[in-house]
Amino acid sequence: MSNCIIAQSGGPTSVINSSVVGLVQANKDIKAFDKVYAGLNGIEGILNGNIIELSAFSEAELNTFRYTPSSGLGSCRYKMKKLEESSSEYDMLLEILKANDIKAFFYVGGNDSMDTISKLGDYTKKTGIDIKFIGIPKTIDNDLMHTDHTPGFGSAAKFIATTTLETYLDSSVYINNGIFILETMGRDTGWLAASACLARIDNKQVADFIYLPETVFDEDNFLEDVKNKFIENNKVFIVVSEGIRNAEGKFISETKKQAHDKFGHAQLGGVGNYLKNLIISSGITNRVKALELGVLQRCAIHCASDIDLKEAFEVGYSALKFALEGNSGYMVAIKRESNSPYKTSHILVEANKIANNVKYFPKELINERGNNVKEEAYEYFAPLISGTPSLVIDNNLPKFKTFNNA
Amino acid sequence: MSNCIIAQSGGPTSVINSSVVGLVQANKDIKAFDKVYAGLNGIEGILNGNIIELSAFSEAELNTFRYTPSSGLGSCRYKMKKLEESSSEYDMLLEILKANDIKAFFYVGGNDSMDTISKLGDYTKKTGIDIKFIGIPKTIDNDLMHTDHTPGFGSAAKFIATTTLETYLDSSVYINNGIFILETMGRDTGWLAASACLARIDNKQVADFIYLPETVFDEDNFLEDVKNKFIENNKVFIVVSEGIRNAEGKFISETKKQAHDKFGHAQLGGVGNYLKNLIISSGITNRVKALELGVLQRCAIHCASDIDLKEAFEVGYSALKFALEGNSGYMVAIKRESNSPYKTSHILVEANKIANNVKYFPKELINERGNNVKEEAYEYFAPLISGTPSLVIDNNLPKFKTFNNA
Repeated sequence: MSNCIIAQSGGPTSVINSSVVGLVQANKDIKAFDKVYAGLNGIEGILNGNIIELSAFSEAELNTFRYTPSSGLGSCRYKMKKLEESSSEYDMLLEILKANDIKAFFYVGGNDSMDTISKLGDYTKKTGIDIKFIGIPKTIDNDLMHTDHTPGFGSAAKFIATTTLETYLDSSVYINNGIFILETMGRDTGWLAASACLARIDNKQVADFIYLPETVFDEDNFLEDVKNKFIENNKVFIVVSEGIRNAEGKFISETKKQAHDKFGHAQLGGVGNYLKNLIISSGITNRVKALELGVLQRCAIHCASDIDLKEAFEVGYSALKFALEGNSGYMVAIKRESNSPYKTSHILVEANKIANNVKYFPKELINERGNNVKEEAYEYFAPLISGTPSLVIDNNLPKFKTFNNA
Repeated sequence: MSNCIIAQSGGPTSVINSSVVGLVQANKDIKAFDKVYAGLNGIEGILNGNIIELSAFSEAELNTFRYTPSSGLGSCRYKMKKLEESSSEYDMLLEILKANDIKAFFYVGGNDSMDTISKLGDYTKKTGIDIKFIGIPKTIDNDLMHTDHTPGFGSAAKFIATTTLETYLDSSVYINNGIFILETMGRDTGWLAASACLARIDNKQVADFIYLPETVFDEDNFLEDVKNKFIENNKVFIVVSEGIRNAEGKFISETKKQAHDKFGHAQLGGVGNYLKNLIISSGITNRVKALELGVLQRCAIHCASDIDLKEAFEVGYSALKFALEGNSGYMVAIKRESNSPYKTSHILVEANKIANNVKYFPKELINERGNNVKEEAYEYFAPLISGTPSLVIDNNLPKFKTFNNA
């Protein structure tokens, strides 16, 4: 019998390890492969020969791992060269897989990872090598094409909605309140910021304004809206995506000192403080607070969505089945069959249709003024935050287990 | 039969409303007062006649309120004048209380609130007015004298410990990791930052360094320690209190633009980013992230400690009993009777012994280098984060109920 391998790539999510355990469980149930290996630190680690046998770990260890946030197999941001440029990396990787009698490779990641799956799928098809390559989606950004949503997003949305409620109350305790700005991640798309529409008290959304990268951010309109709302309510609650841009398409938060990551994406953050200073300078009030949720959005498993954890598990489970059916070069995608009752199924999408593409928050779900989402958006988000998981608890805190060097 | 009143003051906590419900419950059980009123927005609101009847609300509403974070009666930062300066505010307040046939006044707050309780207790004793004044402790800072700890602290500590674990994993996924700085609140004292010592994986504390305001922060030592640890481990996890100071006693984060609140306390924040820039400038690495937990520390009831919620309830409950016994001008304090099993009792402390005093994190629990807490600190913190509460849930998010204008 042959073996399979799974690895993780790109930014972590709270539920990414659940997909890995889903795959291990599928193999236990189906007994398709002798061993399930894990490559530590993604492609980069596998190229260094950093491989462990995941199926050798106990049920208890794997169950703790299932409820551990962040990439417990380690991650990488390694972009393979184009085949036209050099096939040496491809050949080296395939040699390592062959040496370990590996017949299926699973990569849990976002669009950069699907690029890798697509390239490897193409190369093995061309060269007649019998190894299947299947992508398993993950990203809190929810920006992958051809899937209703991505595992990891629901938990991030739940954390954002919960902390929106909590910080809204925290910012409303005085007779004279101020303005509160909650900054979410979302470099290119507004899914995360938009999910704050879930936060309601007495069925009324608590965020007065939600700003997304999908519409042009106009500072004059912004100050006018905030000023009017402040006069009306003596408080304003604002949710803003880190990725909002001006009419020229430039990030509002971008400065000359801005760093860029390996893929040339600008490293953002700080738009909340930018808007805070803008409001104070405009003279509306100087009682303005800004909070950046930062990496908590992608690792706060203590506030995870149970359905998200389950769906992450299930896409991992399905990935193994799809590989056994002979598929290669595809990503497992989630199709929403119905909303009430919430029901989904899994389909395969060619990985090259996902790679280097972005699914934007729909413009038709944004209001005309561009300062909030429409009521219909609620229906999309609501099922994704269902249920509270039972984490493994030790000394009154979540117990975590990783296989990388953490 | 006469009535009583309760109000909240100062910064919110996650469990402050639990104390209010504890007092209402005590009155239901004991039937001491006809009505339990609430003053909205503390003393400031009561002086404006902003009073509601709390005991008229349903069990369900009060139960939702019990699990609602932040000051659900509204808060204020109102400092009463010294009696020597003017008694007019005192007389006005007492007139309002008399007009409502109020015989006991309860104030949930920190040391500024205990100042109010002390002054009012003194004045009524002097003038022979039969109204009892009892303080109920709350503050996430845990800096009140003569009480083992303060309600609100345990939940903040649990949130800090949990997010320390989660962000530690998030910052450890790559082959080449960087340095992560988690900034906690704690203007004067290090209790909050020190509670990060609870965060352990395989019984090993994950924070490499914990910096508190109680020791002088030396930038050279800091850079030396961080550099050595980074060379050793290829990653460094740092927890820092916003209130760390240099040898001259100046806040590290203090700048010329620093705002001050009404009591003259400097409004801090940003020390994490300060240290991030310091590390980058020193050339150790430019892979440095800083995260400010901000107000989430005092409102994240979704990560509350059940024992903290219960203790908040119980101090409220005891406050009513102490007032009935004829006490006035005191705060209810928590005495730790034993650690295993964890057991506490309530005692009364004169409010003027609390007011304008600060309980510092003990120097003997800080290591010699001043860059971490000693192992013994763990024993103090551990019982305070016990248990997970059952919040009221609605549409998969916590359901909240407030009585102020939120």
